[in-house]
Amino acid sequence: MQRRGKQTWHFDQPVYIQGTGTAVGPEELKGPLGSYFDVTYNNLYADQDNWELAERKLMQDAVETALKNAEKKSEEMDYFFAGDLLNQIVTSNYYARELDVPYFGLFSACATVMEGLALSSLFVDSGVANYTLTAVSSHNATAERQFRYPTEFAGQRPDSSTFTVTGAGAVVVGKKQSSIKVTDATIGKVKDYGIKQPFDMGSAMAPAAADTIVTHLRETGRDQSYYDVIVTGDLSRVGSGILRKLVQDRGITLERYEDCGIMIYHQEQPVFSGGSGAACPAVVTFGHLFKEMKRGNINRMLVVATGALLSPLMIQQKESIPSIAHAVAFEREE
Amino acid sequence: MQRRGKQTWHFDQPVYIQGTGTAVGPEELKGPLGSYFDVTYNNLYADQDNWELAERKLMQDAVETALKNAEKKSEEMDYFFAGDLLNQIVTSNYYARELDVPYFGLFSACATVMEGLALSSLFVDSGVANYTLTAVSSHNATAERQFRYPTEFAGQRPDSSTFTVTGAGAVVVGKKQSSIKVTDATIGKVKDYGIKQPFDMGSAMAPAAADTIVTHLRETGRDQSYYDVIVTGDLSRVGSGILRKLVQDRGITLERYEDCGIMIYHQEQPVFSGGSGAACPAVVTFGHLFKEMKRGNINRMLVVATGALLSPLMIQQKESIPSIAHAVAFEREE
Repeated sequence: MQRRGKQTWHFDQPVYIQGTGTAVGPEELKGPLGSYFDVTYNNLYADQDNWELAERKLMQDAVETALKNAEKKSEEMDYFFAGDLLNQIVTSNYYARELDVPYFGLFSACATVMEGLALSSLFVDSGVANYTLTAVSSHNATAERQFRYPTEFAGQRPDSSTFTVTGAGAVVVGKKQSSIKVTDATIGKVKDYGIKQPFDMGSAMAPAAADTIVTHLRETGRDQSYYDVIVTGDLSRVGSGILRKLVQDRGITLERYEDCGIMIYHQEQPVFSGGSGAACPAVVTFGHLFKEMKRGNINRMLVVATGALLSPLMIQQKESIPSIAHAVAFEREE
Repeated sequence: MQRRGKQTWHFDQPVYIQGTGTAVGPEELKGPLGSYFDVTYNNLYADQDNWELAERKLMQDAVETALKNAEKKSEEMDYFFAGDLLNQIVTSNYYARELDVPYFGLFSACATVMEGLALSSLFVDSGVANYTLTAVSSHNATAERQFRYPTEFAGQRPDSSTFTVTGAGAVVVGKKQSSIKVTDATIGKVKDYGIKQPFDMGSAMAPAAADTIVTHLRETGRDQSYYDVIVTGDLSRVGSGILRKLVQDRGITLERYEDCGIMIYHQEQPVFSGGSGAACPAVVTFGHLFKEMKRGNINRMLVVATGALLSPLMIQQKESIPSIAHAVAFEREE
């Protein structure tokens, strides 16, 4: 691994994707990517007794599928990196109890998947691990009642709102050659432009995304044209527009740019400005974008997972919402 | 770095402690280690407007002291690893916003300090970083109202309760030689023996501590006599007794064993079974035990930070409390 600048790691000995798994709920199943996910449920309970257990089941489904696709057993995983949106990251902690694998609990909200995948790739690259497992989850009903209002309250939401993705994504990485490799990771810094509105997380996250994208391009010495696509995690329609402006202010007009939160739902679905949640960048990257890479439609892509570090208590205390974005670059193996 | 077994890293090229900082509140100041802490407050507000801001101030004090003692500026830190007990680890996230340093948010409750220090040491060892900063915090009033009841509620507590330490600890590590080196780290697995009582976290954590200690000794091929002392984070009086029994069941009678949660308070202080909280192992290790190493009273020690992955929501849902313990070994440089 070579460090490039302060924030970027370049894996000159490639780290390969060994297998991925995705599991989603009903609204994601109805969306344009519905047929690409591995495990799907037509209700928010995922055959469990409550929503928290449903979220845990989604993580289990994603992990089991990723292990199966990697042709590995859980005991072959050297380390497990996981996080989710629930207080005390309980989905991850309680699922980790089922795995007999040394565990690192992570939290960077919806940026967690790339925080975990960056650490996982570094572990494999440096020989600390042969294989690692990374997983994240989010659930619309568990997140809404924790961060805003219980859905039964039927509160009105502005159009800038995002809709938390119900799902989980998991990925196994290792040295064994495969069709997709992890080539770079850029670790983000916490940014805060003073947004205080929990119904407008896209705007809160755009500065962190802009900083990480500009830093990545500068530190790698790459032009954006190096990538077939630059993808953000869950800025949604409102945040994506702000990101374009912020990056433009630094002299870059984003050309081939997409957002997972926009891709995952049809515009006519009742999802306001688009999808969000820790699962959003995970299921779209692993379920859809990796398939596009395998098909040869994408050769190189940069995925920038964006985390709004939203806390209901801090909102009550009139604080603004800090954010962070971690980026990982993927290339198709020729 | 050499891997030993599945969970342990041995740093054959030593990683050194560059500087530490500790900040505590009134009850810790009154305790037997009171004079060893760098920054102390005689009230829970730490001159701030609310308890959450007080906790953030404690982290700031600890970090600024650690940087000063390391003779480094924050911009010389390559990465910042931090976590705390508050939902969405807000103390860490909001403090990270003040630092212009790439950030990894961590959560493993009171085991977070050694999760962070293990990752920090690995980063320095592998050359990913020249210097890293690790910080954790907890606050009695912010934690009690989040995890149990507001203190104003004056609920009765059983004697097995622990008392959350108000404080923060920070540490800078790097390659530059100093009087204390990090030699090994053992990454824990999540363990759960079915304890459901949030007023008895020591019992919930003892199985994780036992597993990590036994694994560390087995994987390093060391007898417990290798260490001058083995220290747990915050098992308190009740949990320490259970740990001794669980380790005894595996053929080891713990001899030179201490617990930070017992060391930090006088027995006559109103702290029930002893101290707990993410700050507990951090301030006792950095504020007291490292001084004992520098004085030559301890040459080798293993610190096992223990985290009860307690969630009020999971307790309401009748779940038990899973736990994890991460261990780091320190040696005095001859």
